[in-house]
Amino acid sequence: MSAETSQNRKEYAERLKKFKKIIKAEKPLIHHITNNVTVNDCANITLNWGALPVMAPAVEESAQMVENASSLVLNLGTISSCQLESMLKAGKRANELGIPIVLDPVGVGATKFRIEAAQKILAELKISIIKGNQGEISFLAGKEAEVRGVESIGEYKNTAEAAEELAKKLGAVIVVSSEIDLLSDGRQLSEINRGHPLMGKVVGTGCMLGSTLGVFAAAAKNSNLSLFEAAQTAVYYYSLAGEKAAEKELTPAKFKIEFMDAIYKLRF
Amino acid sequence: MSAETSQNRKEYAERLKKFKKIIKAEKPLIHHITNNVTVNDCANITLNWGALPVMAPAVEESAQMVENASSLVLNLGTISSCQLESMLKAGKRANELGIPIVLDPVGVGATKFRIEAAQKILAELKISIIKGNQGEISFLAGKEAEVRGVESIGEYKNTAEAAEELAKKLGAVIVVSSEIDLLSDGRQLSEINRGHPLMGKVVGTGCMLGSTLGVFAAAAKNSNLSLFEAAQTAVYYYSLAGEKAAEKELTPAKFKIEFMDAIYKLRF
Amino acid sequence: MSAETSQNRKEYAERLKKFKKIIKAEKPLIHHITNNVTVNDCANITLNWGALPVMAPAVEESAQMVENASSLVLNLGTISSCQLESMLKAGKRANELGIPIVLDPVGVGATKFRIEAAQKILAELKISIIKGNQGEISFLAGKEAEVRGVESIGEYKNTAEAAEELAKKLGAVIVVSSEIDLLSDGRQLSEINRGHPLMGKVVGTGCMLGSTLGVFAAAAKNSNLSLFEAAQTAVYYYSLAGEKAAEKELTPAKFKIEFMDAIYKLRF
Repeated sequence: MSAETSQNRKEYAERLKKFKKIIKAEKPLIHHITNNVTVNDCANITLNWGALPVMAPAVEESAQMVENASSLVLNLGTISSCQLESMLKAGKRANELGIPIVLDPVGVGATKFRIEAAQKILAELKISIIKGNQGEISFLAGKEAEVRGVESIGEYKNTAEAAEELAKKLGAVIVVSSEIDLLSDGRQLSEINRGHPLMGKVVGTGCMLGSTLGVFAAAAKNSNLSLFEAAQTAVYYYSLAGEKAAEKELTPAKFKIEFMDAIYKLRF
Repeated sequence: MSAETSQNRKEYAERLKKFKKIIKAEKPLIHHITNNVTVNDCANITLNWGALPVMAPAVEESAQMVENASSLVLNLGTISSCQLESMLKAGKRANELGIPIVLDPVGVGATKFRIEAAQKILAELKISIIKGNQGEISFLAGKEAEVRGVESIGEYKNTAEAAEELAKKLGAVIVVSSEIDLLSDGRQLSEINRGHPLMGKVVGTGCMLGSTLGVFAAAAKNSNLSLFEAAQTAVYYYSLAGEKAAEKELTPAKFKIEFMDAIYKLRF
Repeated sequence: MSAETSQNRKEYAERLKKFKKIIKAEKPLIHHITNNVTVNDCANITLNWGALPVMAPAVEESAQMVENASSLVLNLGTISSCQLESMLKAGKRANELGIPIVLDPVGVGATKFRIEAAQKILAELKISIIKGNQGEISFLAGKEAEVRGVESIGEYKNTAEAAEELAKKLGAVIVVSSEIDLLSDGRQLSEINRGHPLMGKVVGTGCMLGSTLGVFAAAAKNSNLSLFEAAQTAVYYYSLAGEKAAEKELTPAKFKIEFMDAIYKLRF
């Protein structure tokens, strides 16, 4: 498990440079089928990274829309049967075309419907990156998970194991967002101890991390960097932007503005 | 009808302290089935009060989601048949479990469909708090109401009566938001002469008051304070936050940021 | 093709004064059936112009809601079959009542479904103003259009022709938003070389221009100014607000706040 050192800080900076170059050259289209609570934030953060967002949730067109996209972000925040159908259609087309899919299984475990939706997606689609909180990832890994539980040290240990097992089982990169973020691809485990508590006091920071992973997954495809490295770099700089924003503002609405602009400034 | 005095200012401060303590300890989950125009604002304001928002509109899960919630907020802003069905299902489950429901009958009176939706909700569900503007409350009370009418002094007098009658008929707390807010539970009538005109120049301040009432209704359950006192306290501090924000900014977008952060700061 | 001179700057100022007076007196209701990504922005910008937004997408009521409206804004951003049906119903009622319709054919050309939706709307409804980017307008005019193409000078020349042809064919005012905005009603062609590149780095500036055109189309009805003049004035001041905002902030989230407030300040 890698801790942050001046060595890997330098490596992160090198990677970001590469990703930025690719994003600037390709302006990848990131297709989202996402919840209606944070959809505007997701679109803006994608644009702030220099990529192009498109949100076309309708089952009538979602599969065709994905054909021009460089990645697909699926977010279960306000999932319905209709939206699930659209996700499966778009996801299958993405799989056929080798377009990476990022899944944010928001609230999985909270209701029977949400559980079945996540299970169906994992059964029918090949997912590249799954990002969730400790409860969501634990639940998907078949561990006990408290739906509204406070996150404990005990739970955290389970999560590392859960992430690793889930990564192996699905052949996906797992990102567990928490005070200390955790990444696993089944072989390597990485901790990122960055970010700021205010990120948890603004609606949408979880969803926007999903979009961010969508941008980096798209960029990874035409780089010599792995999906794991892409996810690491995404989480690292996303969290750093949170730290920078908190240096300027310490109330949620103003912090959010600074945070989104901090992402934008990373491009330069 | 109570006017504000230094005596009840002190009482409000005492109550806020109690509510804050309960919210901090319980982190109540506030389930929303709400419109898609202001859904992000509603989620953020709920978080700013220290409670946890969840927005799960789908009929497939809304009733199960409410089981872990401490209150349910129903907002008719972008109502459809499908969403109405979800509200009724979730509302019935809430009623079974004794979970308070806040109803915001946005635009009732404007269309036949909206009227029928509101009537169905009131016929099938027991509502704890109804919050509306003068036209909406007047309409629900069976009074004449202008759909786009400018609010007059004459109308205001009708509204007080309308609020009282509606409160008695439904056994609910009625909140009429206007320049001077008005509350009735059928026995007591209370006026709150606070707030700032800029609150009417930002989309979502009405809906966010609905969420705020959801938070305080949830907290009231485990307090020795009544639902009427909860609603009074909510409206009073919500309006005060508007005043504080207007001391800093006088254009709507900047005012909104200050307003949301002013709510957040009330927690400390 | 008219370039900006001190003469027409003066004329724009005169027109804005007229429009502001009408908007203030009438507080026109602008009904939107729009996408869920930018719906909150559209509502706020409408309010910032001094008009009243209403967003009632449900097919159960959209036609009745339009009866009290002064214009109808249709935006294809997140179009579905169900929403299309609602647009057609509301649009027909608007046509019957002589209420102007603004169409924003977002992403037309990107998918078969979106193309058919736009075609159906244009076949069944009389549209007053169509606002799109170069690709969208070119596509609607039957010209070759790159779905994700970078905008070139060559393309721009085609667009002027496309706008003119489309305007003649449909009897509508066509607004092509680009670095230099272009307007045509089939007889006159107008260029507006205003605005700021940051407007392209914020999600929703396109959609909010649609709402703005809705406000000015509503106001034009009871003025001695034509729909073409209304659209010109709308685009001119919308772009000017972008310039003013960019004088204050140069990162997207802060720029957006300034931009929305700059529109608000135009009212005084």
